[in-house]
Amino acid sequence: MGVTGYAGMELLRLCLSHPEIRVTLLCSRSAEETGKEDLFPHLPQAHDLPLLPPDPGEIASRAEVAFLSVPHGSAAPLARKLLSEGVRVVDLSADFRLRSPELYPLWYGWEHPFPDLLEEAVYGLPEIHRSRIREASLVANPGCYPTAFLLSLAPLYRAGVIGGGKVVVDAKSGISGAGRSPARDYLFSEVDGTVRPYAVGGKHRHLPEMEQEAEALAGEPVRVVFTPHLIPMSRGLLSVAYLTPCREVGEEELCRWATEFYASSPFVRVLPPGRIPETKWTLGSNYCLLGYTVDRRSGLILAFAALDNLVKGAAGQAVQNLNLMFGFSETAGLLSAPAFP
Amino acid sequence: MGVTGYAGMELLRLCLSHPEIRVTLLCSRSAEETGKEDLFPHLPQAHDLPLLPPDPGEIASRAEVAFLSVPHGSAAPLARKLLSEGVRVVDLSADFRLRSPELYPLWYGWEHPFPDLLEEAVYGLPEIHRSRIREASLVANPGCYPTAFLLSLAPLYRAGVIGGGKVVVDAKSGISGAGRSPARDYLFSEVDGTVRPYAVGGKHRHLPEMEQEAEALAGEPVRVVFTPHLIPMSRGLLSVAYLTPCREVGEEELCRWATEFYASSPFVRVLPPGRIPETKWTLGSNYCLLGYTVDRRSGLILAFAALDNLVKGAAGQAVQNLNLMFGFSETAGLLSAPAFP
Amino acid sequence: MGVTGYAGMELLRLCLSHPEIRVTLLCSRSAEETGKEDLFPHLPQAHDLPLLPPDPGEIASRAEVAFLSVPHGSAAPLARKLLSEGVRVVDLSADFRLRSPELYPLWYGWEHPFPDLLEEAVYGLPEIHRSRIREASLVANPGCYPTAFLLSLAPLYRAGVIGGGKVVVDAKSGISGAGRSPARDYLFSEVDGTVRPYAVGGKHRHLPEMEQEAEALAGEPVRVVFTPHLIPMSRGLLSVAYLTPCREVGEEELCRWATEFYASSPFVRVLPPGRIPETKWTLGSNYCLLGYTVDRRSGLILAFAALDNLVKGAAGQAVQNLNLMFGFSETAGLLSAPAFP
Amino acid sequence: MGVTGYAGMELLRLCLSHPEIRVTLLCSRSAEETGKEDLFPHLPQAHDLPLLPPDPGEIASRAEVAFLSVPHGSAAPLARKLLSEGVRVVDLSADFRLRSPELYPLWYGWEHPFPDLLEEAVYGLPEIHRSRIREASLVANPGCYPTAFLLSLAPLYRAGVIGGGKVVVDAKSGISGAGRSPARDYLFSEVDGTVRPYAVGGKHRHLPEMEQEAEALAGEPVRVVFTPHLIPMSRGLLSVAYLTPCREVGEEELCRWATEFYASSPFVRVLPPGRIPETKWTLGSNYCLLGYTVDRRSGLILAFAALDNLVKGAAGQAVQNLNLMFGFSETAGLLSAPAFP
Repeated sequence: MGVTGYAGMELLRLCLSHPEIRVTLLCSRSAEETGKEDLFPHLPQAHDLPLLPPDPGEIASRAEVAFLSVPHGSAAPLARKLLSEGVRVVDLSADFRLRSPELYPLWYGWEHPFPDLLEEAVYGLPEIHRSRIREASLVANPGCYPTAFLLSLAPLYRAGVIGGGKVVVDAKSGISGAGRSPARDYLFSEVDGTVRPYAVGGKHRHLPEMEQEAEALAGEPVRVVFTPHLIPMSRGLLSVAYLTPCREVGEEELCRWATEFYASSPFVRVLPPGRIPETKWTLGSNYCLLGYTVDRRSGLILAFAALDNLVKGAAGQAVQNLNLMFGFSETAGLLSAPAFP
Repeated sequence: MGVTGYAGMELLRLCLSHPEIRVTLLCSRSAEETGKEDLFPHLPQAHDLPLLPPDPGEIASRAEVAFLSVPHGSAAPLARKLLSEGVRVVDLSADFRLRSPELYPLWYGWEHPFPDLLEEAVYGLPEIHRSRIREASLVANPGCYPTAFLLSLAPLYRAGVIGGGKVVVDAKSGISGAGRSPARDYLFSEVDGTVRPYAVGGKHRHLPEMEQEAEALAGEPVRVVFTPHLIPMSRGLLSVAYLTPCREVGEEELCRWATEFYASSPFVRVLPPGRIPETKWTLGSNYCLLGYTVDRRSGLILAFAALDNLVKGAAGQAVQNLNLMFGFSETAGLLSAPAFP
Repeated sequence: MGVTGYAGMELLRLCLSHPEIRVTLLCSRSAEETGKEDLFPHLPQAHDLPLLPPDPGEIASRAEVAFLSVPHGSAAPLARKLLSEGVRVVDLSADFRLRSPELYPLWYGWEHPFPDLLEEAVYGLPEIHRSRIREASLVANPGCYPTAFLLSLAPLYRAGVIGGGKVVVDAKSGISGAGRSPARDYLFSEVDGTVRPYAVGGKHRHLPEMEQEAEALAGEPVRVVFTPHLIPMSRGLLSVAYLTPCREVGEEELCRWATEFYASSPFVRVLPPGRIPETKWTLGSNYCLLGYTVDRRSGLILAFAALDNLVKGAAGQAVQNLNLMFGFSETAGLLSAPAFP
Repeated sequence: MGVTGYAGMELLRLCLSHPEIRVTLLCSRSAEETGKEDLFPHLPQAHDLPLLPPDPGEIASRAEVAFLSVPHGSAAPLARKLLSEGVRVVDLSADFRLRSPELYPLWYGWEHPFPDLLEEAVYGLPEIHRSRIREASLVANPGCYPTAFLLSLAPLYRAGVIGGGKVVVDAKSGISGAGRSPARDYLFSEVDGTVRPYAVGGKHRHLPEMEQEAEALAGEPVRVVFTPHLIPMSRGLLSVAYLTPCREVGEEELCRWATEFYASSPFVRVLPPGRIPETKWTLGSNYCLLGYTVDRRSGLILAFAALDNLVKGAAGQAVQNLNLMFGFSETAGLLSAPAFP
């Protein structure tokens, strides 16, 4: 559902070449307005698939699992109905990411209609919650920024080299993160040749999920100071966290811990000491690249993560979650390497 | 060989995920200067492969087939030695594309050292020379511009709707076509935000192969007026040919002929009448999209072709040729869809 | 009027630093929706100017001349009222570019409401109609494509080296030409990394003005085969015309004629023989660069023009027209050089 | 001198339209290799100026002041000779930016040959050192990153709202900052579509000048944790500093202080509370835009600065310094507004 957005189209691309998935139905509320040839000119294999407005009953008659790639607030009622019809759900919206129902009015402006489902939902970051995802009927696929942030910090929290408290996170994202709806702010001519900070000063809605998961890892309250920026590129996301270590550490140590932490995680690659990732090395792939350095003059740790916001930051991670939910190989349909340049 | 250039890296990417190919050796003359982690940061699977200066004997001991992605003039002697060692060759340079040895001094400035091999070599455009490629030991992989040009015109020549004579071709290419060697003209700041015509007025070296193959299709002399442009994007190539038809035709007819002509060619897709392709619909994929229109006021035919210059215009086509040479499915390893956006 | 679009903002920028112009009023139909700080964050000098919905009476009380940068069809009634109030008009829309009222239903879909004004209006290409512009009350500022096309061909028509008949014109434009209204097709992620032909086959609305002016220069009917493309850059326009000469000519001759033809035209620069312009050499400036070559194998003439679609292709040319209308130096306020890179 | 680099070309552009400057001589060590038509195709006015290898005697016979836009280490001996010949110098390299000679071996790898000149040189940030610049014979034009950093922090240090200690600075720059020399890392295809951190962990050479000037403002030791990133755009620089305030403050207060601090500084514009600058609003202009916010959840101050790295970050600031040195209006030749988009 929501196949006409960027994450939805990317899901479609990944599913069409997945060895275990058969796509039976595409859904979109704007289905009738534009033909499939216009919506997915790059995916002729999808032109023969049915494209309908979302109807949970219809979906239940055709599918075992549904990806929801619809606006925040629209996913919750759809998910409820699908689950009650026996359809498992991977939700790419934020509707089930937060465990505390009280956070929804604060960050999203509405009461959560199904607090019971929040308890049932699993936060779909496989590198942290792999075993729970395997059992889940409802997976809340993480936001793109939280994925980068959490993957770069998890090994450090677990190693005890950092604790709770303030973390400064400065992140840069390609424009596709802003979606496919027409808006002056995202016209080519407005965005080309500029760097644009937005939602600064503690306003970005990814903050509560970043803190929720960081606190679970740290075992202490965490306060994230988060500054996202739009960058003139279609895809790609880079985040850097500035961290005060509990004790002196070196780059080798950091890289070794992270490498060990992700030894069984096929999509996270820790670069050797001294190397820092850039986003282009991940484009179109489900990989997240991590790099660590220690500021030689202040002792601060800098933790870098690079990924493709539409793949590991959205659709690829959703497929990875599905792979776990259905007992497929975690990497099924996800091993293609980035095309460079 | 030549794995550190853009076409070479793309070959590596495609081969690493190809179900029938095992990469045993990478070659590059600049192998020692930079580490593999620097050369292919996006391809960690390649970091353990041996990377050596090119040595035909060594290659023959390890491989049945070699891709040559080296500068024009360097490929011919390597190919000669490899063939004599029993290694089949797909050559991405121009060294075996022209059948007449007299053309090499005119267009490349050197005498061809092995005119006998020119007779043996097959021009590797599978949609035209499929059966001969299956038998070939030496395939001359076409240039990116000729691939687009020839695929868009072949059905029209065969249908007899156009004949010999002058053809105006205006083409636009991403910057990766200019290669990976450092040069001021291709720095980001020089190329960003500009459209740059080059090699105008009949100077581009792809001209003789365009005319050689067009004449074979037309059965008459063809003179191509060719204007290539550099465009601020990494990949992608679009060409449009302006054609005077022998008799009045309509778009439906043109699209129908082309669709029939390519009925058994899995990588050429003819768009429906009224649709014109853009390059982004092909990025990272081996597809070539064709669109035809008739200028309603002059009767001229406009034939458009869009492709990824590094895939169908280089590395993907080379793998397609290898598939044919070795009896694999023509599409093996080449079916991944473009990532949009 | 229409100051919130790209051409309108560029007009504002140029007028604010013009030695003879005082901006007294900005108009926009969407004036109230967004603040000036949001509309022109880059032009703080404009934040104190009044911004009102368009009202001809109000304008007449404050100004001697008005620039109309509003959609096609909206300009004609505004111009009529302004002229009757004694305000001279430079109209950047197409509403007064065509001399034959019959062309409006065919190309724009409406009957022209003021055919008498079409006779009065002067086509505002100063290099061709300079003396008539000096006397005009109503100037129809040319389209961006026609400006490039006509400037590159005028010297050849006048020299008699080309005559009437078919001309193939292939042009490439930055995205700002598509305007500032929100539309999915012009989102960054849709346009980045692609080349997109549009309005192909004789459908672009700039065609009738191209032919009208070319016929006046040639003294014979001219049929333009025109293919515009969108290119991933904000600004810049390049056109190339493919021309069959009446007799054999060389590049030196072509460049010499053009140089002489534009000897008194400060904004047209003819490059030396062998040089072809690119768009980046004009960005932000009112210059149009011309380059000529002869295809050495076919004898065709290639005439190239590069300009900034928002300056010489719109706002800069409008100011140049105003300079002539008011007896200022033709170059007043327009001499700033492009910023490279 | 060094007119063939990006900063040098930008200086040339600004000087050619400056009402008080007459350019008499261009210098470049690579002068002979390429013609002026190739080096500055966008600046035809410069094609008739002499272009010679740098010779201080020759320069002294033709000029009162010289801009040095040459590599670090090359400027010092040239400046020495020019000063002894009575030519005043604005040096865009780092050779005179640091007051302590001991810092040069640590950061630049060579002993400073003229420590006496370090005492004489004035750090050319007019907003901080305006009166000393007026008297200077040798001005050390600041780096692009320090300009942004210092302009955004100066009002806060002066207001006492922040003190010494650690400051995290995360900055993003267009590619022109990397210069015009051919290098694989800055090819379009390598840089397009990526965000690339570099010189991370305390290695960037702009650090000592950032700390030198910040310490002078703070009156205490300052330790800057600095992470620069390359962004796929030609020009533009954005920096954000994360600051722990000495006491609670609000955005209104911060903006008011900064506005007052820069009341007599025509090129610094403080945005209203709640607004954050982006780089595109400054392109081609000498303006630096500042924005302040307070992270509502942590109390940290975020100080943003946006500028054009080649203008306020290099050539424009150099002209501003020259204006002060020669008693011209500080804004002479520098008031042109950015062209948007």
